[in-house]
Amino acid sequence: MTTPSSDAREATPAEVRAYAERVRADVEAELDRLVPVESADPPSVHAAIRWSLFAPAKRFRPLLVTASGETFGATPGRLIRTACAFELLHTYSLVHDDLPAMDDDELRRGRPTCHVKFGEATAILAGDALQTLAFQTIAEDETLDASLRVRLVAGLARAAGTPEGMVAGQAHDLAAETRDDVSGEELELIHRRKTGALIASAARAGALVAGASGEELKAVNAYALDLGLLFQITDDLLDVTASAFALGKTPGKDARAQKATYPALYGLAAARLRAHEVFESACAALDLIDSPTAMLRGLARLVLEREK
Amino acid sequence: MTTPSSDAREATPAEVRAYAERVRADVEAELDRLVPVESADPPSVHAAIRWSLFAPAKRFRPLLVTASGETFGATPGRLIRTACAFELLHTYSLVHDDLPAMDDDELRRGRPTCHVKFGEATAILAGDALQTLAFQTIAEDETLDASLRVRLVAGLARAAGTPEGMVAGQAHDLAAETRDDVSGEELELIHRRKTGALIASAARAGALVAGASGEELKAVNAYALDLGLLFQITDDLLDVTASAFALGKTPGKDARAQKATYPALYGLAAARLRAHEVFESACAALDLIDSPTAMLRGLARLVLEREK
Repeated sequence: MTTPSSDAREATPAEVRAYAERVRADVEAELDRLVPVESADPPSVHAAIRWSLFAPAKRFRPLLVTASGETFGATPGRLIRTACAFELLHTYSLVHDDLPAMDDDELRRGRPTCHVKFGEATAILAGDALQTLAFQTIAEDETLDASLRVRLVAGLARAAGTPEGMVAGQAHDLAAETRDDVSGEELELIHRRKTGALIASAARAGALVAGASGEELKAVNAYALDLGLLFQITDDLLDVTASAFALGKTPGKDARAQKATYPALYGLAAARLRAHEVFESACAALDLIDSPTAMLRGLARLVLEREK
Repeated sequence: MTTPSSDAREATPAEVRAYAERVRADVEAELDRLVPVESADPPSVHAAIRWSLFAPAKRFRPLLVTASGETFGATPGRLIRTACAFELLHTYSLVHDDLPAMDDDELRRGRPTCHVKFGEATAILAGDALQTLAFQTIAEDETLDASLRVRLVAGLARAAGTPEGMVAGQAHDLAAETRDDVSGEELELIHRRKTGALIASAARAGALVAGASGEELKAVNAYALDLGLLFQITDDLLDVTASAFALGKTPGKDARAQKATYPALYGLAAARLRAHEVFESACAALDLIDSPTAMLRGLARLVLEREK
């Protein structure tokens, strides 16, 4: 398939915002049902889980699950728990990445980080429990066939673990911090694993729930890998240009930590140019899909132009 | 069913040792296939995973999966990956529990703990990846029906997480450390979650793979809950009486940390008596099972009389 799809329309920013707001509300309501109440024994861990999970957040991975799934015809009701599982997994990674032994961050999603608020031991346990709950949520989703659930668990695990997933990327990133010879190629490998793998997996998961074809899965995967890369480039750009108030986390940390970033490697202007190229590449991948891809295109634009 | 089973024979210590040795060798060979090689990128995490996973260990949870599964007629080939998943999950919990912010242990399975050898960040990531791999291993076990894999993932998750599983128990345990009013009842609740839940889940998982009936699952669950409690009582006793050389970890830590333990609460003699009562209770639960339970009985005896 190399002919362009009949519908290359892009959802308007207003349409994307309205859709994102609806998904955010649905996902947060479902997460509230999935996570034990704060008073449930032991309260320390449940308070910590809820602190990190219910901080104001974009819910970008759930959004990608639902937008991708709905593109190929899945109903929201069959996508919601898979969407939540990705947010649970992502939140575990934030809680652990912020720990003093890791990135040592004190501000996240506009709040003190989990270990600052609840102590390190509780933060480690909260992250551990969030990861567990992510897999449990998919395994117990009775709206989906068992064979589908098994594929989703395996896909989420491969995106989260080693050697190709998030933990591998984070370990590589930590190892690269003390070096000053990180190439652009190596930087992209780190980001592909650290951020891109989970984002691509979210888009694939939605398409899987919808019963998309192999060709469609391949196209959506290519789109999402670009989207993950785009997300990281704009993240690096925002770290240089945005305020803590807008970001909800501490800006300028990358530069102080002398981390390899796109602006550091290429300069601001070239990094912005690279972001536009990657955006175009993501949209080109969608040209191979026959279903209406307006929302996926709009989401890519949202990432390109995000201000936090 | 209240009539005793026709076979209440107990496997001899020699039979149990031979069986345990065979399972240990099979499980370690399979774990070696499941975990990326040490040179796989990023090497730090894979070296840390292998350091903690392949230290000399009893492989007690895998042993329980296979002994329970074989009791109800499952073949070893269908049990091996579920057995490995429990060991991966258990090892993640050891790596995280040993961290400075948690129990702050320097010796485990006869070796320096993961964070002492590889640093805290790598130990956190190694534990995270081990948990992920546990769920992945079950999800990708093609010898089992998808519907069975889904039940196994859900069961493992409930035993590992909150509010009823291992993380809940560990959080409760940490919260109780600073208090001097922990009752015997509360101590048993902590242990049931911290150790018992995963051990009971291992025994249930084996029976599930074998297609055991609801009554059989109930009986094996009661047996395994007692076994978990027995394991903890003898663990507490060994912390008082054994040497670091025999234990492979630092003894006397509980007393120094003024932790609530069975010997501390009841005295040595009463704790030993309680261990015998719990052993008898575990065996009584097996009386309700018609399949030959000799190995499960022998395993309970092994725990009662263990010296490390």
